[in-house]
Formats: sequence, C-alpha cells, structure tokens
Amino acid sequence: MQIAIALYENFTALDAVGPYETLGNLPGAETVLVAERTGPVRNDRGGLSVVATRTFAEVTRPDVVVVPGGPDPVNQTGNKALLDWLRAVDPTTTWTTSVCTGSLALAAAGLLTGRRATTHWLAMDTLESLGARPTGERVVFDGKYVTAAGVSSGIDMGLTLAGRLQGDMVAQVIQLMTEYDPQPPYDAGSPDKAPAEVVAFCRSELQT
Amino acid sequence: MQIAIALYENFTALDAVGPYETLGNLPGAETVLVAERTGPVRNDRGGLSVVATRTFAEVTRPDVVVVPGGPDPVNQTGNKALLDWLRAVDPTTTWTTSVCTGSLALAAAGLLTGRRATTHWLAMDTLESLGARPTGERVVFDGKYVTAAGVSSGIDMGLTLAGRLQGDMVAQVIQLMTEYDPQPPYDAGSPDKAPAEVVAFCRSELQT
Repeated sequence: MQIAIALYENFTALDAVGPYETLGNLPGAETVLVAERTGPVRNDRGGLSVVATRTFAEVTRPDVVVVPGGPDPVNQTGNKALLDWLRAVDPTTTWTTSVCTGSLALAAAGLLTGRRATTHWLAMDTLESLGARPTGERVVFDGKYVTAAGVSSGIDMGLTLAGRLQGDMVAQVIQLMTEYDPQPPYDAGSPDKAPAEVVAFCRSELQT
Repeated sequence: MQIAIALYENFTALDAVGPYETLGNLPGAETVLVAERTGPVRNDRGGLSVVATRTFAEVTRPDVVVVPGGPDPVNQTGNKALLDWLRAVDPTTTWTTSVCTGSLALAAAGLLTGRRATTHWLAMDTLESLGARPTGERVVFDGKYVTAAGVSSGIDMGLTLAGRLQGDMVAQVIQLMTEYDPQPPYDAGSPDKAPAEVVAFCRSELQT
C-alpha cells in the first residue's frame, strides 16, 4: 500500500504531519512525500521545509492520497500541477483525502462536486462555491473521499482511516504509541466553542 | 523572542511540528529549526526530512528551547552535539522544554536532576534512571522546565506555554486557527485507557 502526501509551497506543516504520524504508521504502508519537484518545500510561514522525495510524475498509482491545506486558497485552487496530478491519480485510489483547505484542491479538481465534505472553518464558503456540500463534522466520509476540518484534525482523520484500513487494534496501537490522549488547556478549538471575541478576531484579522 | 526547535537524526516529526504550529505561531516569535549542521534532517522512519536552517553554533541565546523525541533513547542520551548545546544555552533560556523522549536529552544534559518531568509512557524508567522524577501528567512544569508526554502531547504543551507567554486570548486564537477540537475515534491514547492487549503489544513489540 502506497500513501502519497502531497506537498506544495505554503502548505501547513501539521496538516501533512498529522496524517503522516497516524495513517502513515500503518504496518506495510510506504508513505511518500510528493510534489511537483523533489527537494525542500516551504510551509506557509516560510521557516519550515519538508523534503519531497518523489515528483508527481513518479507517483502514478498511490492507494491513498492526502492533500494538506494552507492559509491562502489560491495555493490550492490555482495549483495546476497539483490539480492535474489529483485528477490523474484519483481514478485508481482507494481513498482520496484532505486536511484543512486541502479539500479546496480536491474540489477545484472536480472531485467533490455534490459531495459532503469539510475544510477549515474559515473556508466553508469557498468550499461550497467549488461545488461541495460543506458539513460541520470534523472528519467527513463520502464514498472514498475523506475530508477533515482545520489543521490538527488530520490526526483524527488519520486514526479513523487507519482503523478502516487495518482494523481497530492497529489504529489503537498507533494512538497509544503517539500518546494521543488530548488535553487542550482551553476549549476553543471550534467556532462554536471559542469565546466570541476569539472568533471575531480570527474572522476580522486572520481570514485570507 | 526566539524559539529554537532542535532537530537530530531519527527525531519524530510530530514531536517537533506540534509545538511549531502552536507555540511557534505566537505573534512576534521567530522560530528556528536548529541542528548540528544545516540541511535536511531525517526522521525516525527515514522517509521525512525537515530542513534545519541554523546550526547549534549559530543559536546561542534562544528564549525558548524545544527538544523533540524519537523512539531510540540513544539518539537523545548519546547525542553529544545536542547535549553540549543544551548545556550551553540553558542558563539564559526563559523556558527549556521537550516533547516525548526529548526529555531524556534534557535529563542526560543534567538539567532535570531531581525535577518532576515526563516522557513517552514507554520511557518512564529511562527518564528516572537519568535522575528526574517522572510523573503521569501530560504536561509537566517544574520551574522553567516543561516536559510533555509522547508525540502528540507537544500540541497541548505548545498551547499551554503560548498562554503563559502571551495570555489566554492569544493561545485561544492559535487553538481556533489550528482547529484543535480533538475527536479521537478511540480512547486508547494512554496506557491507563487503552485495551490491555494494545498496551501489551506495544510493550512487547515496540519498546526500544
């Protein structure tokens, strides 16, 4: 089984690394980091680069595709190399997945038309404008398309999909080895739960 | 404020990226990825490299230090370059922190002697043998030393420390922007909660 995590300039590091450490830890899985070109790919803040080890042209039959997001939708919806690759490999994947605004790339590639899907909470309107049907769930399954909410949700998506692929025991071993027993110091992880002034600040100052 | 995340061969990627996306998102913070040499540093599974942009020699006065862990303790306790750097920079840090078995490096450098601390649940005995006093908490503060449990706990540590440094509002903005509203599909993230056979498998098959 080959899991291909797509990288592109301005991706969010945790979007890629959450699924890498969960889904990518499945026994027997080969996880590859794939991009238009091999070599370092810079993240959204510019200070962290992850090395792509394969080009899109080299990865033609991945079983699972994971597309991370990033703060500026143009990096997903306007990325021709990424969208062309997604359209080319999707017909033979078992699962085509995304984290955060990675779903905007899937939608822009035409893969989520009419499908239930999710994205970062600040990008729901953009996802809808691309033809998907946004939901408020953290991890959304619609056929073989699995989309997760913002950034850290890729961990929940990765564990959920690990369970579907190899069973609950294997997924729980991965959860225990990554000690994923979350204890956030605040309860502000979704717009429904965060204080109103926190939500307002994000909408006014941080929405791209 | 400079936050220095140390990299070394065989580190666990999520240990570094969890704090990077939380603590490292503080307004005004410069986050640097530092290692013995600049360039790509391979993770524990060998397939993911993060690029170190500074050498230990170049980063002499970080305000915050973060040491990620990795599965084989020799990579922490036997890493002379890392330990020498930790001893050199610790006297002037505001916070010296670790995720997972990163605390074994802090302890081997002599920084946790007699202090309350934590590590990956499979490494508690090793931490104790290095002079620290292990606890079962997920994030442990003892003076300026902050240690977190395994792998994913670096997200909780990063948010907690973000709040200490710049207040609850800023930390909650980071939590909301990373949509950290965890919904694990299983409740197996600690040895107290996971099914006995899952714990037993990890102890017998996966302990280094």
